[in-house]
Amino acid sequence: MAAEFDLIRKYFTHPAPAGMLGVGDDCALFPVPAGQTCAVSTDLLVEGRHFFADVEPALLGHKALAVNLSDLAAMGAEPLACVLGLSLPAMNADWLEGFSRGFLALSREYGCPLVGGDTTRGPYICLSITVFGAVPAGQALRRDAGQPGDDIWVSGTLGGADIALQLMQGKLPPEHWRLPGLRGALERPEPQVALGRRLRGIARAAIDISDGLLQDLGHILAASGCAAQLDTQALPAHPGLAGLAPDILLDAMLGGGDVYQLCFTAAPQQREAVLGAATAAGVRLSRIGKLEAGPPGALRDGQGAPLTAQRAGFDHFEG
Amino acid sequence: MAAEFDLIRKYFTHPAPAGMLGVGDDCALFPVPAGQTCAVSTDLLVEGRHFFADVEPALLGHKALAVNLSDLAAMGAEPLACVLGLSLPAMNADWLEGFSRGFLALSREYGCPLVGGDTTRGPYICLSITVFGAVPAGQALRRDAGQPGDDIWVSGTLGGADIALQLMQGKLPPEHWRLPGLRGALERPEPQVALGRRLRGIARAAIDISDGLLQDLGHILAASGCAAQLDTQALPAHPGLAGLAPDILLDAMLGGGDVYQLCFTAAPQQREAVLGAATAAGVRLSRIGKLEAGPPGALRDGQGAPLTAQRAGFDHFEG
Repeated sequence: MAAEFDLIRKYFTHPAPAGMLGVGDDCALFPVPAGQTCAVSTDLLVEGRHFFADVEPALLGHKALAVNLSDLAAMGAEPLACVLGLSLPAMNADWLEGFSRGFLALSREYGCPLVGGDTTRGPYICLSITVFGAVPAGQALRRDAGQPGDDIWVSGTLGGADIALQLMQGKLPPEHWRLPGLRGALERPEPQVALGRRLRGIARAAIDISDGLLQDLGHILAASGCAAQLDTQALPAHPGLAGLAPDILLDAMLGGGDVYQLCFTAAPQQREAVLGAATAAGVRLSRIGKLEAGPPGALRDGQGAPLTAQRAGFDHFEG
Repeated sequence: MAAEFDLIRKYFTHPAPAGMLGVGDDCALFPVPAGQTCAVSTDLLVEGRHFFADVEPALLGHKALAVNLSDLAAMGAEPLACVLGLSLPAMNADWLEGFSRGFLALSREYGCPLVGGDTTRGPYICLSITVFGAVPAGQALRRDAGQPGDDIWVSGTLGGADIALQLMQGKLPPEHWRLPGLRGALERPEPQVALGRRLRGIARAAIDISDGLLQDLGHILAASGCAAQLDTQALPAHPGLAGLAPDILLDAMLGGGDVYQLCFTAAPQQREAVLGAATAAGVRLSRIGKLEAGPPGALRDGQGAPLTAQRAGFDHFEG
């Protein structure tokens, strides 16, 4: 048992940055810069539901943190620190080494040190991740801030993670595996933290696409009390999807989850500033539609036809 | 499924306090008072390990939050907000109503609003709770701040939760159930937040007793590089344990977990201030020993004999 705690310490304990108190007391301590508000996001990830037991541990560690950093990005917040809860059927040095390697590499890359946690035994793997960030008071990018007339923008590309998942699940013929980069889109999402930060004061509403473009944009529409028109021709397809049947591609772009790109709105006068932010962050942006006055949540395409994906997006309580 | 999300909303969504952003965006937002540091504690609680599936949901909701508030108390931090991750085999309105009632009642009592969360389906109940607090910069009560010569204090009483657990597990004859108040000590711990706050600037090292007095005091000794002498006659037994065999009682007080009282050290010159803090917080305090120069972690009783509990305290990875 002592040996098991030693493993946890070995792989997860690292010196806390100056000014912070890390693992080893009743609480971790970290400062929040003066004039800034603390932003927090939490996820509970369960084996068999969000990942499979045989997933490469380093990829799981990366993704578990990435999806939470993506929530900070969508608020325009800078990462400050994170904590991790880990329930495992048994201690396994290889698993812990891999998981901590993936987790801590991303934590270092985004300046989000692991300052606390809890480890326990349980019948299957269960992870809880909570991230803290800071955003200047009043400048957070909120879902309810969209206004009719706003442009709708999306970062990066769409559909890659979804098609990779369909291939892994055998829902698409395996010859599509020749398409490059798909698996990385699913397994190694990069949170758009630099873009989110640079959009403060420029964008209005923002969200990260975790459950699918239509569903997540729908959250902006509902919170902002707007309808929207989407130009489906302007949707940025993942470059690995060039040979795919158009209907499968469109559905993946509209309904596919696990994207972790930002969807945000901004006034048309901000187009230059928006593109400048994207250039500075080194991120591709596409302008894909407009918010409109209309029934909150209503979405239509460029021809005015109602827009839906064949799938409604990821449902966390699907059977 | 929509109905299931409605249940979550119904029981857990409540208006965020002024100045905060609660459930419903990518992140929750809460301010940290100027000049204060953010304190954070996280727990992952797993069915079958930390509680049983048939536990009264309101008690589980209470205790899950209480043990985390107890960590804030042990740092001298004031609660600011909390987030909750919940994995459930199925949605059950009765369970959610009970759990949220116990959780939110304590959250209101301690001014620790629930501002965010994550809900998912999983094969058994799994809870993650993360609490945030604030403590003036440099004033947190840390485990490593004890000094030889310090008095050792403990709040409240010891042994009640442990004996209740032994009775529930059939390890003690059932006639002891006539002893009053035991079950409450196990099931409804009250975090010592008011005491922790008032001990800032008075106490040196502090910890909350979750795994047993000897084990948790041992963490202070290890972090502070001290030994200690304990006056076992001064240990405050739970009033419901008056008729118990002395050896069983002593072992429960030294080794029993789930106490959630504070154990702390303070210089002898602070005795009056310590007792004043306890009176102001409405809490009983007992002075139970002294820190000494000596091998870090070494513990002896008033006669100088090495002190151990028959059990080593709760081990989170016990088989």
